[in-house]
Amino acid sequence: MHPDELQQYLREVQILLARSSVYAEDGETHEEIPALVLPAPEHAGTLRLQLDALHPADIAYILEALPLEERRYVWDLVKAERDGEILLEVSDAVRESLIETMAPHELKAAAETLDADELADLAPDLPPEIIRDVFQSLSSDEREQLRAAMSYPEDSVGALMDFDLVTVREDVTLEVVLRYLRRFDELPDHTDKLFVIDREEHLVGILTLESLLISDPEKLVSEVMRREPKVSFAPGDDASDAAQAFERYDLVSAPVVDRDNKVIGRLTVADVVDFIREASEAEILSHAGLREEEDVFAPVWDSVKNRWAWLAVNLVTAFVASRVIGAFEGSIERLVALAALMPIVAGIGGNSGNQTITMIVRAIAVGQIEESATKRLLKKELGVALFNGVIWGGLLGVLAWWLYSSASLGLVMTAAMTLNLLLAACAGVLIPMLRQRFGGDPAVGGSVMITALTDSGGFFIFLGLATLFLL
Amino acid sequence: MHPDELQQYLREVQILLARSSVYAEDGETHEEIPALVLPAPEHAGTLRLQLDALHPADIAYILEALPLEERRYVWDLVKAERDGEILLEVSDAVRESLIETMAPHELKAAAETLDADELADLAPDLPPEIIRDVFQSLSSDEREQLRAAMSYPEDSVGALMDFDLVTVREDVTLEVVLRYLRRFDELPDHTDKLFVIDREEHLVGILTLESLLISDPEKLVSEVMRREPKVSFAPGDDASDAAQAFERYDLVSAPVVDRDNKVIGRLTVADVVDFIREASEAEILSHAGLREEEDVFAPVWDSVKNRWAWLAVNLVTAFVASRVIGAFEGSIERLVALAALMPIVAGIGGNSGNQTITMIVRAIAVGQIEESATKRLLKKELGVALFNGVIWGGLLGVLAWWLYSSASLGLVMTAAMTLNLLLAACAGVLIPMLRQRFGGDPAVGGSVMITALTDSGGFFIFLGLATLFLL
Repeated sequence: MHPDELQQYLREVQILLARSSVYAEDGETHEEIPALVLPAPEHAGTLRLQLDALHPADIAYILEALPLEERRYVWDLVKAERDGEILLEVSDAVRESLIETMAPHELKAAAETLDADELADLAPDLPPEIIRDVFQSLSSDEREQLRAAMSYPEDSVGALMDFDLVTVREDVTLEVVLRYLRRFDELPDHTDKLFVIDREEHLVGILTLESLLISDPEKLVSEVMRREPKVSFAPGDDASDAAQAFERYDLVSAPVVDRDNKVIGRLTVADVVDFIREASEAEILSHAGLREEEDVFAPVWDSVKNRWAWLAVNLVTAFVASRVIGAFEGSIERLVALAALMPIVAGIGGNSGNQTITMIVRAIAVGQIEESATKRLLKKELGVALFNGVIWGGLLGVLAWWLYSSASLGLVMTAAMTLNLLLAACAGVLIPMLRQRFGGDPAVGGSVMITALTDSGGFFIFLGLATLFLL
Repeated sequence: MHPDELQQYLREVQILLARSSVYAEDGETHEEIPALVLPAPEHAGTLRLQLDALHPADIAYILEALPLEERRYVWDLVKAERDGEILLEVSDAVRESLIETMAPHELKAAAETLDADELADLAPDLPPEIIRDVFQSLSSDEREQLRAAMSYPEDSVGALMDFDLVTVREDVTLEVVLRYLRRFDELPDHTDKLFVIDREEHLVGILTLESLLISDPEKLVSEVMRREPKVSFAPGDDASDAAQAFERYDLVSAPVVDRDNKVIGRLTVADVVDFIREASEAEILSHAGLREEEDVFAPVWDSVKNRWAWLAVNLVTAFVASRVIGAFEGSIERLVALAALMPIVAGIGGNSGNQTITMIVRAIAVGQIEESATKRLLKKELGVALFNGVIWGGLLGVLAWWLYSSASLGLVMTAAMTLNLLLAACAGVLIPMLRQRFGGDPAVGGSVMITALTDSGGFFIFLGLATLFLL
């Protein structure tokens, strides 16, 4: 590598380093990047030390922000024993680019530093022979956990849970619990409650750290614990339901139990926050037709693959709309103003329909709409559409009249706008409601469908009305 | 009210009641709605009891899912002393509809049940005279807190923080701290750490409950505490930066300090989760041009107000695009196929541009892109656009050739598609990057701008090329 290049990206890394820790100890954000001392190539050692001092999530942030080559260079500087935890923190796309550069023995070493639940997260990206090797090296308990964690579908509670439990018995005093805890070197992250179990490991109650701390230590666990855990999950539960419960009840951790009410794991708010963030990013990306999060520095070909499906669908719907226009070529030839006005009718219909469908899909997602509300919603949305049609359509009608000196063209414009807005409102309510009824995901592709409908529909309504009344 | 109506919505409420608690004690989701006993009108008392047993967040959920009239009926059944906490949980739109129905003395009573930070959240929706009354009834400490909380801008740490602190001194033993905690009836929600302060209330360290529990009680706080709090915030810090820090470092709570490093408040993961959810919802809604979350059962007029701005902007951009077409009316008259083909060029350009801008905006938001990367990103996106232009544009060119038996029309089609995709790629990278450079929010309205550009640009490129080479 050319020394200038190395200098250039050591500088970039320095900038990122300065920004990576979101907050300095003084509680101020790093708005200003401090003056940089450019490290000479032989100073990679300094950089290595700086990286060693960072939280794995901060290193992940730096790796994600670096272009491919620089990313690999920094990745090589990171201590091998931290590879595993950093791989967990980076996005899927970046993880792939890092794993590609690692030798099998490095991957195996990285994987072996992880807990069973973490390993399960990483497993889909690892070569099968590495998984097999790592599996051999686990204790039988851990094997069981790994097998369990990998058996749950991606968006289930089972896939998010960890196995770091602190359990106590109900027939001991709090004093005994306090002494028991002092034997730990550390408690699992996000321990805000201990799980009270009986001899057969059934969950019988919850002892919060709060009640442990504020109660008289002479008391028995059974006197202090909450017997009915407010919230517990089954591993097959939907992760988004669990996330909703965490939000609604402000939970920090919650037990996961099997059918026999045995505690098998724990869900923490950290996992839930990650899930919420990922789910909402996926929603935003899918609105724009991106299949998944993209590594911004990915090669052209990766981006093409990520985006082609949407463009293909869009091509088909645009072609259909184009054929609708094609059917009215005779009319356009006789009144060319139609060609200039028709995209307005289609465009406004599409935007209005997208407003409606976005609102309905969100309301369905948070459980605010029952099927019984369909009629009521339809009535309301048609009201909004009629209002907008008369006002905006009327305005455009006047404009068309003024531009082309034809009152009847203006009237057709207003009528077509209103009808297309009504079509958009119906579709915006019915597409997600019907999907929900037939068990589909009301969100997927709704925006494509509605745009296709209002484009073709808008052209058809406008050109059709014009052909009937103007020619 | 007609008894049938009442029955109808008591039934609706029953369904919601059955669904409201996301999880039953047995850890199973309520997939099936249990057979319902329809309450007679006189059984409102039963409903009241059922409501009393629910978590305020669950009642908020029910209220949000009910149409206006039913919502008011249920709201009247809720115990007055719970009004305050429920108002905090419902969405802004629904909160407005509930407050409208309340008498001033009810509002005042509800407000008085709240903490200063909660009151600050509610204040913008309350009539000023209520605020004044409530303010009078506060202690001077609380007044100071309320004033402080209300003075911070909406998306700052100050607006999210609460004032429920447990502080300790560093020169006492853990045993003393444990005894001190036992004097509490309860600890503030999400207490995972105590704040260690000196005589002047400066933050000198953090004592986690974990280290309190696992360490020898004979030790001094100063021996066990972490002297440099990993993360602390200033009240003026950006809430989204704070949310990123919570996500990255898996925090449960963090201190908020003023310029002199005095602890003035605390940020908890519950507030952060709410913030993340709201921010991502706002982003999704704004993509569809909805100004804010909408109460799905709001009257037509409220919806019109929420949506009109976007439609107005859209009208202007569509009108501009229409005028571009208007300028080429002569060409269209001579070759009417242009009218049918032009929306394809514009539409695909818009979609592709939206993919690019969505990706860039997201990468900027998570801090993955520096300005120095602009050239590199531009090169990559232009590569993707060129590829798509040649492949998809070529395909459409062949289709146009086949439909209209004109090879030159096909060539113009391919060239126009490619150029418009290149335009979309440039705009998709440059719009957000330039906005960030000039200190604007890279997300706002980017999608409108790019669609406007690729519509007008697409029409201009296609019709212009056709006029030059075909006529």
